[in-house]
Amino acid sequence: MSTYVPEAVIRRLPSYYRHLRDLEQEGVQQISSQELGERMGMTPSQIRQDINSFGGAGRQGYGYQVSTLKEHLRGIMGLDREHRMAIIGAGRIGKAVANYTGFPREGFRTVALFDAEPTGSELVTDGATIPIYPAEELEARLPELGASIGVLALPAGGAQDTADRLYRSGIRAIWNFTPADLRCPEDMAVMNVRLSESLHLLSYMMNQMEK
Amino acid sequence: MSTYVPEAVIRRLPSYYRHLRDLEQEGVQQISSQELGERMGMTPSQIRQDINSFGGAGRQGYGYQVSTLKEHLRGIMGLDREHRMAIIGAGRIGKAVANYTGFPREGFRTVALFDAEPTGSELVTDGATIPIYPAEELEARLPELGASIGVLALPAGGAQDTADRLYRSGIRAIWNFTPADLRCPEDMAVMNVRLSESLHLLSYMMNQMEK
Repeated sequence: MSTYVPEAVIRRLPSYYRHLRDLEQEGVQQISSQELGERMGMTPSQIRQDINSFGGAGRQGYGYQVSTLKEHLRGIMGLDREHRMAIIGAGRIGKAVANYTGFPREGFRTVALFDAEPTGSELVTDGATIPIYPAEELEARLPELGASIGVLALPAGGAQDTADRLYRSGIRAIWNFTPADLRCPEDMAVMNVRLSESLHLLSYMMNQMEK
Repeated sequence: MSTYVPEAVIRRLPSYYRHLRDLEQEGVQQISSQELGERMGMTPSQIRQDINSFGGAGRQGYGYQVSTLKEHLRGIMGLDREHRMAIIGAGRIGKAVANYTGFPREGFRTVALFDAEPTGSELVTDGATIPIYPAEELEARLPELGASIGVLALPAGGAQDTADRLYRSGIRAIWNFTPADLRCPEDMAVMNVRLSESLHLLSYMMNQMEK
């Protein structure tokens, strides 16, 4: 399948997935575009258009089968297999990501942390004991770890260099928690988590409301 | 000023701010829409249109004065004053937010943590010692704390109830780290940080690239 899915719809895919998973857990087997729209704060026609564009199938007067649509999304988003993550930066953010039990449950497993100045040799989480290696061992360790995602949780100054090293080691996906704007080759997927920007937007909204 | 700023431009405001701050630090005093566009990965005409829509002024053949434009953005985003944050949930995410030194530097100061089952009475960070209170004291403590932002870093199940309590206590801004979809009155600003969704999008990008 190589359908063109509009950018705006892509950004909503995880939200569709989350709602369908919740519905499944609530025991709901089918849902109309009307009901799904109410849950997601969208119009029924937006819902139908979106689902149509990412190749989900519904039936007139019946709606969507929750589990089928959820599984379809799992496939599109590659959530039907395990992804291994190497976290670079074993400070508070790196450790918080490694400790978050929701990620392994969803197939994103942290296999190692790297740090320029490791303060310990492992991190014991609820589900696993994760080794912490010196950052200089990145190239040597990555092949055996089988990681496909590099998580940047180090100071911004080292982000670009680390991204380059990850790329040369065969990593093609970066989850970037630093404020750095990474310049990466086209075949590197980069997802930025901009906490400061999110806070600044909240501040903007507060500021507007006060007027 | 109550100009209408398009949603897409609003989302880019923090990025403009960040780039202008970097430029200022690099000692750059003025910049053309061409140069700013190159830094931000946008066309010069997009840049001019954006800046025009949020009320920034440039001069033909000269461009923009970096510090003036930056200060203008600071004003729009309310970054010219202090915001006090109360974090609800003193687990790993709550503590990571409290510990992040970038936030107080930008005027967002954590004044307290609340937790349903506090394991200590304070959190010592690089810059301050922050009290940790039992969650049941939320209503009693908030007035004296002068907090304007509630940070939700607790399990999703308690998010809506806590949001309601924050609203009744006069809080009008929530920074939501839980996956819960909050239903809040219109005069409550809510900014969601969806880490799982961000990871799912990265996975989607990886999946598309492999095709």
